[in-house]
Amino acid sequence: MEAAQRVTGRIGFAGLGTMGAYMAENLIRAGHELSVWNRSPGRATHLVDLGAAEASTPAQLGATCDIVITCVTDAPDVEEVLFAPDGLAEGMREGSLFIDCSTISPTKAREFASRLSQRGIAMLDAPVSGGSEGARLATLTIMVGGEIDDVERAREVLGALGSTITHLGPLGAGQWTKAVNQVILAGTYLAVAEGVTLALKAGLDAERVVGALAGGAAGSWVLQNRSGRMIDDDYPIGFKLRLHRKDLGIALALARDVGAVLPVTSLAASFEDGLIGEGHGDEDNSALARSIRTLSGL
Amino acid sequence: MEAAQRVTGRIGFAGLGTMGAYMAENLIRAGHELSVWNRSPGRATHLVDLGAAEASTPAQLGATCDIVITCVTDAPDVEEVLFAPDGLAEGMREGSLFIDCSTISPTKAREFASRLSQRGIAMLDAPVSGGSEGARLATLTIMVGGEIDDVERAREVLGALGSTITHLGPLGAGQWTKAVNQVILAGTYLAVAEGVTLALKAGLDAERVVGALAGGAAGSWVLQNRSGRMIDDDYPIGFKLRLHRKDLGIALALARDVGAVLPVTSLAASFEDGLIGEGHGDEDNSALARSIRTLSGL
Repeated sequence: MEAAQRVTGRIGFAGLGTMGAYMAENLIRAGHELSVWNRSPGRATHLVDLGAAEASTPAQLGATCDIVITCVTDAPDVEEVLFAPDGLAEGMREGSLFIDCSTISPTKAREFASRLSQRGIAMLDAPVSGGSEGARLATLTIMVGGEIDDVERAREVLGALGSTITHLGPLGAGQWTKAVNQVILAGTYLAVAEGVTLALKAGLDAERVVGALAGGAAGSWVLQNRSGRMIDDDYPIGFKLRLHRKDLGIALALARDVGAVLPVTSLAASFEDGLIGEGHGDEDNSALARSIRTLSGL
Repeated sequence: MEAAQRVTGRIGFAGLGTMGAYMAENLIRAGHELSVWNRSPGRATHLVDLGAAEASTPAQLGATCDIVITCVTDAPDVEEVLFAPDGLAEGMREGSLFIDCSTISPTKAREFASRLSQRGIAMLDAPVSGGSEGARLATLTIMVGGEIDDVERAREVLGALGSTITHLGPLGAGQWTKAVNQVILAGTYLAVAEGVTLALKAGLDAERVVGALAGGAAGSWVLQNRSGRMIDDDYPIGFKLRLHRKDLGIALALARDVGAVLPVTSLAASFEDGLIGEGHGDEDNSALARSIRTLSGL
């Protein structure tokens, strides 16, 4: 009877990194009862102060929650949280819902969903975009793949985390869409980096140039929000460049699978490899401008 | 005494192409007395019906106006309107102002300004962005270079043509900024083209993908306004691809002058050369997506 009512009960959150910690906090602020778990200890203190319960293992987290959300780095991390001994899959009840907000390959997402479905656990892939600001302000773009009933069941919870929640299709479609997002971002970063570099080399007031162009056809979120970092050549986080490089790896593997040719994205991935090698991987993604600046002697 | 008051008298407009015809119409609608001239006859009829006077030569146009605006294709066209026999320079009075809204090289702009100044005629470079929609709706982005007094004198007139009028620096700074604009546009078109192509090849609902991403970090004017054309593979004008290629030629020449390396812009220019060769030069600039689609077998 209780299950048939589908009133969302306690929410679980596993993975309290930069993104996850803000997301978990927004769930508490939206009035949800929350349990949390993180691999390395000490990350939950602030959330426990706000009223969250801390679980000692993912299995324990799963056992007490109707919906469990993860936000970790890559597919091996998701796999460990789900299927390692004392993992979520051991604890989560039949009929419960697992939502993965990590960015991983759609193939891996479908594999995990298949394994969970054998235990009667539903899954959505729901990767996010918007970086740490979006996570903090609950303005994330959330790209959801899965069954429509599960999406409806998750909608209120996801609504506490982001401002645009779109159901893109069956399981994996969220990850595909995230790959498209990262591809567009890669090219837009390079576009703005080339424009800023030309303006600086020409001796123009680059900030004034951005002000003149931001409202026109050259306008973008990147031009509005990241050109200043490129002009200053200083890249506070944001979203780590090496995580974007990881996501481009997923996107380029998908492109190979379907035969899509992405020359600008490939160039961005190569530049990012060089920047990570030079120690810039923990800077904001906009540090991709370093490559264009360096080539141009800036 | 009259000149000292600096009340703007009759405005002249030379070059009634797609952009110029809309711009001239907006000047009339804003209440300005307007005279017009166009190289090929018959383009002024609609404007004469709205109250414009038609001049038989640029010299005659110049003789009756305090401010003359041109919007033509390239530097040789500007040079002809100004300095050919019966050109504007012969007719324009000392103390009058010439505003060039064409996109030409800053070097040429400074050369023309120098020749005009010998006759006591001031000049502004004021290239525009926003395409035919921007010209029609008077929402152009106008990038102005020149002396501050001349900019102030022109501000009301330019305000009838665009919604963002920015003074970027001395003569030529408008053209430099326009080059930056076209560089950013080139990369943003390719970024969106790669994203759309990946989405289509993956079998996603590409319009829904755009809807999910447009409000986030991947968002841009191009994604919002031109991805639909790329999805449909149909590119109604807009802004002609071959004019963008001309502008990239200017931008890449400037980049060589100052030592800026623009790999994505260079790639876009190469793709556009191929598309022009295949007969796509009169399509909208967003037809740049054809290159990515074709490479990907779409």
